[in-house]
This record gives sequence, structure tokens and C-alpha cells, in this order.
Amino acid sequence: MANYLIQHLVIIGVGSIGASLGLALRRSGAVKKVTGVGRSEANLKIAHRRGAIDAYSTNAATAVKTADVVFLAVPVQTMAQIMQQINASLPATAIVSDAGSTKVQVIKDAEQHLGNIANFVPAHPIAGTEKSGAEAAIFDLYKNRNVILCPSAKTSSQAVNLISRMWQTCLANIEIMAADRHDSLLAMTSHLPHMLAYGLVDCLAQSADSEQIFHYAAGGFRDFTRIASSDPIMWRDICVSNRDALIAAMEYYMRNMQNLYAAIKAEDGQQLEQIFSRAKRARDKFLG
Amino acid sequence: MANYLIQHLVIIGVGSIGASLGLALRRSGAVKKVTGVGRSEANLKIAHRRGAIDAYSTNAATAVKTADVVFLAVPVQTMAQIMQQINASLPATAIVSDAGSTKVQVIKDAEQHLGNIANFVPAHPIAGTEKSGAEAAIFDLYKNRNVILCPSAKTSSQAVNLISRMWQTCLANIEIMAADRHDSLLAMTSHLPHMLAYGLVDCLAQSADSEQIFHYAAGGFRDFTRIASSDPIMWRDICVSNRDALIAAMEYYMRNMQNLYAAIKAEDGQQLEQIFSRAKRARDKFLG
Repeated sequence: MANYLIQHLVIIGVGSIGASLGLALRRSGAVKKVTGVGRSEANLKIAHRRGAIDAYSTNAATAVKTADVVFLAVPVQTMAQIMQQINASLPATAIVSDAGSTKVQVIKDAEQHLGNIANFVPAHPIAGTEKSGAEAAIFDLYKNRNVILCPSAKTSSQAVNLISRMWQTCLANIEIMAADRHDSLLAMTSHLPHMLAYGLVDCLAQSADSEQIFHYAAGGFRDFTRIASSDPIMWRDICVSNRDALIAAMEYYMRNMQNLYAAIKAEDGQQLEQIFSRAKRARDKFLG
Repeated sequence: MANYLIQHLVIIGVGSIGASLGLALRRSGAVKKVTGVGRSEANLKIAHRRGAIDAYSTNAATAVKTADVVFLAVPVQTMAQIMQQINASLPATAIVSDAGSTKVQVIKDAEQHLGNIANFVPAHPIAGTEKSGAEAAIFDLYKNRNVILCPSAKTSSQAVNLISRMWQTCLANIEIMAADRHDSLLAMTSHLPHMLAYGLVDCLAQSADSEQIFHYAAGGFRDFTRIASSDPIMWRDICVSNRDALIAAMEYYMRNMQNLYAAIKAEDGQQLEQIFSRAKRARDKFLG
């Protein structure tokens, strides 16, 4: 027993995020048993065939009875419901963590619905692709990626340590951050870009000559709009649960776009060159 | 002589677009000699070392004296100046084409500055990456890509045929389109996305905690903002020369974003799911 970091991991929500964790941990030998829980038996079978889980169930309450770690990887507006379902049958020592893209809301849900809040470790792996479901799982999805943990004063340090070690086994980097800071940061770097991409594709799809428009789209457009192929339910939930930070980010962005628009309208080449150069420098410096 | 499609091709502007054409044509054996013209001798030497050109010059007027085809691959606002420089020394039978990202303005420039407008074939290869310079040239950049030709009633069909065959040698698909249609289509599929990406990166770069913001950016953000690493001068010129179509595209987009913003503010999950689903369906259908 001593050789395993986790005896029985229960992953609730075996989409690309949950199944990728299962794949990585089962390959590493750090977990004795992984059970997947979901509503779709077809998807659970795919996860099992791909080696992401050892067993599966469609009943969360029953599955968690023998868990030492429970990992919630469902859309953020489903978290509360799952917590209600599992709370009564969770072992007293079981540690619960999640992969929710927003953290303030999920922590509120945990405080309301989980009996032992000290054992809940709010987490967000900054990884994933635009593809959904167990079929899209990748064993090294988390390699060199950041996983942000947002423990509160109530969170046990033992629980934080175990979840950190779990992610380190997947070769991820651990970062600790306050939940509200996480939510405003992610509003800018992830939620806002998704809105821009969804908005653009929807815009073009609704125009009369959308077939022609997409036909002439080149590689840059394909990359730019990739995130608009992400799961609509997941993103609906993120928008609602991170409403305030996302609205602030969109307002900031739209003011900025108004300036760019005005510079184009005025044919102000000097200002345009300045804006584009500043953006190129920043991107090349940080992401080049 | 009969075996060559082109005896002497002069490429003015040996950036990634010009040098990629040189690489493809020299590999194919369709061109006897390729001369590169540019202001930077360092860049011309790179193009020569990489095999994109046989010879180079910093004097466009002299270089075109023995050309049968001249290819202009400079920022669109530089086209007029180059045309003025070469017009007097262009052989009467030489065919001129370009790679400008906007077509109405370039055609106006040609009508004003080229003596023989019948031999000018307005063209736009829909290809390229965010990287600039001869170092970024790729021999198969145009393979399976669309090259849009915008001949007018004045353009000789012989000239259109030669330029079509030149691009077909690079394995590109040829499409014919009116210049104003090209400009409004590209405003939507290329110019608008570039504005959104430049605007987003500039927005984030100017915020107080930009270092942190970029640090936590994930793969989706990297893809989404790739086009913001494009050449600022090229994009300044595109904005000014395609002002009207781009402004219309931005207005259309900003109205659409206002709707999305309102749905988030109202926490209208149903509408959000509808927008995201519609966008995902369109992208998966056309680009998935």
C-alpha cells in the first residue's frame, strides 16, 4: 500500500480533462485504482478502453464510498449538484479537488454542500484543447502546464500537499493563488479570448455568404478560431459563474477596440503602427 | 528556352511571401533565373543562401530591365512607389503581379503608375505565417492554398494565364474574384481577426500585471494571439488601404459582441449556449 500516492481515485466527469488525469496517473503507477463516474456509459467505455480508468459507474454516491481522492471535472454549474450527491457517502478522510475554470463560485458551492471543507482543494489545471470527451484525452496533457491551487485559510495543508503531489506526478507546475485573483486573471487570458473567438465565428456564420467566408479563411483564421470549437455547456457555465470578472474584461477590451477602430477610421498610420508594434513585442517576448 | 515557364522572374520584396515563391519555383524548375530586390542586403543574402533567389539587387529599376515577370511582395502602401521606380525600365512584354493583401488600392496604384495596365495581374495568395523575412520562407507555403486573382476588363487573358500557371506550379488553387469583393471578404476573414488579436494582446500588455497575465496564458491563448506577431508595417498598410471594408467589419463585429456582453450581464444561460453552439457547429463544419 505504501507505494501508492492514492489508493482509490474517483474521477467524476470523464471528459478530456478528467480522462487525461486518469491516463497520466495510471501510467505513472501513482494510483492503485481509478474509477470514472459519468452519465454517458458510452463515454465511460471509451475512457476504459483508452486506459484512463480501471472501472466505471453512473452513480457518484456509491462510487465515492471507498475513495481517498475524488476529482470533480464537470462544468462549473454542475459542481454543486455533484457535491450534494456525494457528501453523505464521502469517507471522512477523503480529499476532494476539482478542475473548475472558475474558483470563487466552486468554493462557495463546496462551503455550502461539502461537510468537511478542510479537505476540499480548489484547483484549476490550465490545460485542455478545444476537443471534448474521453476520446480527446492525452496522457501528457498536463506536462509543463500550470495547475493553480486556491486553498483558503480553512483548507488543510495535508490535503493541499496530496493534491500538489498528484499534479506533480503528471509533470505539472503548481501555483498557489487567491480564488478571486484566479478568476480575474483567467477572465483576461482565457474567458475573454473565448468570447472573442465565439463571437467572431458566430458573426461570420450568420452572414449571408458564410460558406464563401469560411472557404477563403487561411491558417491564421483556423488557429484564431480554434477555441470556438470548445464545449458550449462548459463555456455557458464559465460565463455565468465568472460574470463580474468577465464583464469587466469585456468592457476593458471593447474600450480598447474603440480606440483601434477610431485610429483606422482616421487613417492614423502612426498610431496603428504603434499599437501593432507594442502588441507584437509583447507577444514575441512572452510567447514567442 | 522553351522548357521554362518564366525566363527571368524579379521578386521585389523578399520577405516570407516573396522568398517562398522563389523557393517553390526554383525547386520546380519552372523558372530559369530569379532575382530578388530589397532594401536590406542582409535579408537578400539570407534569401540567396536559402535558395530562394539566384541573384539580388537593391535597385529595382535596373533589376527589372531583363524581366519577363515581376512579382511585387511589399507592404501595400509601398506598391505605388515601387511601380513608379520600375515603370520606365519595364520591358513592354513584362507581366507584373503582386501579393498585396488588399486589391482595390493596388489596382488604383497600377492604373496610375504602370504604363501597360493590360499586363498587370492583381493577385493575393492566401497564405503566410506570423513570421517575417526571408528566413521564414517555406518551399511548400502555397501548396493547396488559394490564390485569388482580381483581373479587370483591361487585363490581358495571356497575362492571367501565365500568372495562374506560375501559382499552379506552386500547387496553389486559383480563384478569380472582383477586387471589391476580395477586399470585403478578406476584411472579415483576415483583417478583422488580426485587429481582434492585436487589440487583445495590446490590451493585456498595457495592464499593470501583464507579466502574470502572459505567464498564465495556456495553449488556446497562444494560438489565438499568434497572428498578433505579424509584421506591424504590413498591417498598418492593410488597415489604411482597406479602411472602409474593415470599418464595416469591425462595426458588425462590435454590435455582435455587445449582444454577447448583454447575454453574459443578464446571466442568460440559454442564449449563451445557443451562441456558443451555433459558433461551434459552424467552425466544426467548415474548419473541423
